[in-house]
Amino acid sequence: MKTLIVHAHPEPESLNSALKDLAVSTLENAGHQVRVSDLYAMGWKAVADAADYGPAASHPLRLAQDSGRAFDAGTLTPDVRAEQEKLLWADTLILQFPLWWYTMPAILKGWVDRVFTYHFAYGVGEHSDTRYGDRFGEGTLAGRRALLSVTAGGPESHYAARGINGPMDDLLFPIHHGVLYHPGMDVLPPFVLYSTDRMTAEDYPDVAKAWEQRLLTLDTTEPIPFRPQNAGDYEIPSLHLKEGLEPAGRTGFGLHVRG
Amino acid sequence: MKTLIVHAHPEPESLNSALKDLAVSTLENAGHQVRVSDLYAMGWKAVADAADYGPAASHPLRLAQDSGRAFDAGTLTPDVRAEQEKLLWADTLILQFPLWWYTMPAILKGWVDRVFTYHFAYGVGEHSDTRYGDRFGEGTLAGRRALLSVTAGGPESHYAARGINGPMDDLLFPIHHGVLYHPGMDVLPPFVLYSTDRMTAEDYPDVAKAWEQRLLTLDTTEPIPFRPQNAGDYEIPSLHLKEGLEPAGRTGFGLHVRG
Repeated sequence: MKTLIVHAHPEPESLNSALKDLAVSTLENAGHQVRVSDLYAMGWKAVADAADYGPAASHPLRLAQDSGRAFDAGTLTPDVRAEQEKLLWADTLILQFPLWWYTMPAILKGWVDRVFTYHFAYGVGEHSDTRYGDRFGEGTLAGRRALLSVTAGGPESHYAARGINGPMDDLLFPIHHGVLYHPGMDVLPPFVLYSTDRMTAEDYPDVAKAWEQRLLTLDTTEPIPFRPQNAGDYEIPSLHLKEGLEPAGRTGFGLHVRG
Repeated sequence: MKTLIVHAHPEPESLNSALKDLAVSTLENAGHQVRVSDLYAMGWKAVADAADYGPAASHPLRLAQDSGRAFDAGTLTPDVRAEQEKLLWADTLILQFPLWWYTMPAILKGWVDRVFTYHFAYGVGEHSDTRYGDRFGEGTLAGRRALLSVTAGGPESHYAARGINGPMDDLLFPIHHGVLYHPGMDVLPPFVLYSTDRMTAEDYPDVAKAWEQRLLTLDTTEPIPFRPQNAGDYEIPSLHLKEGLEPAGRTGFGLHVRG
């Protein structure tokens, strides 16, 4: 297994950094190859702008088209090209981050915004009246697996089906489905730790054991069964889910999960 | 009316920038005061780190506590203090942004991550076994209104109830409810433009007219009726919505909207 870990926490002595370090050692000790993009340590540029596209930047700037042209020409900036190469090298991607304001920190969002360019992660395949690209199950990163490892300060009950924050599966859906499944990756159920604001050193051994177990079963864990866009479940061109495919009462994001 | 517009697009000639400019002129011509935080033009620092907290930063860094201590001491960085002051000055907040990967661009997420500090936007009020803070309808920004103005490249059908991207209301819920309602703001229904990838100059007059109408009715538009945390709808301390309050069949994020 070849795993890329993208890590987004500023403090090397944080829980997130400990989980990242444990992932590296656990996977390497099991004979796997691991690469790490430690975004804070790298001084990752979080903000997408014209400088990313060099001579491919147009006036006025059009981010999709310009990023696609720079991707095609091989003139994206070296930092972005390096991340795209790591994604193509890896068969497994882990994003390690704390939940800030119910989603990823800005530095990780900026990794997505800048690395997931047009023609690489979207705008791939035929776009016409009868087909809307190779995406949601197909695309550049098809055949690879992805896993979110997330820490949440608040208690699990707040993220339950009736919890005030909304269900964690729904909060993560735009990342799982919109960012990772979109360019073709199979997405594993997330590893989520709750109440980390109140976690103590005494709690860590159990956490570490649970994380090791997830890491050592990455290649046998069943992905979330999202519906592929181009396998018959959706009307064309509306991309509405066809009537009657979902279990009774299922609505919202959950419609796009089979079974 | 005193409106703060936070604008997150790198291109001054973009649709987003045109909508921002139109908001300024429309509101000012109607006699209102307007301030703009043009994040790209300001070179906004998107990444939260120890430098934000100056002498209040601890070792190891703890972002919540350290940001709260720096807020209390008045030692947050000048850029963050200026944004907090603008939020306190304004009675209305507009966030203008393109939907990138189903949420806000990194630079705007970084505005939230850095400006919405502990003791300012969260960690406000009593936290005990019987009360979990002044939030979701109460808090520092209570009594203010907020509106998202969002452009989406893809067609509206993809964001419909059965659309493949998931419903737009659900995609925006973590911002509406998690970021804006959390510190107490009333959140208005969003102004969303779809298929902006294919929009032409000929389409703009109708778009401008619709946006002007929304801007001139900001103070009479009914907010989304999210449920206040501390008004009896939730069990304490689980913060589960009490059984039977929702319309039949309502699940997920929609549970937290009344009626």
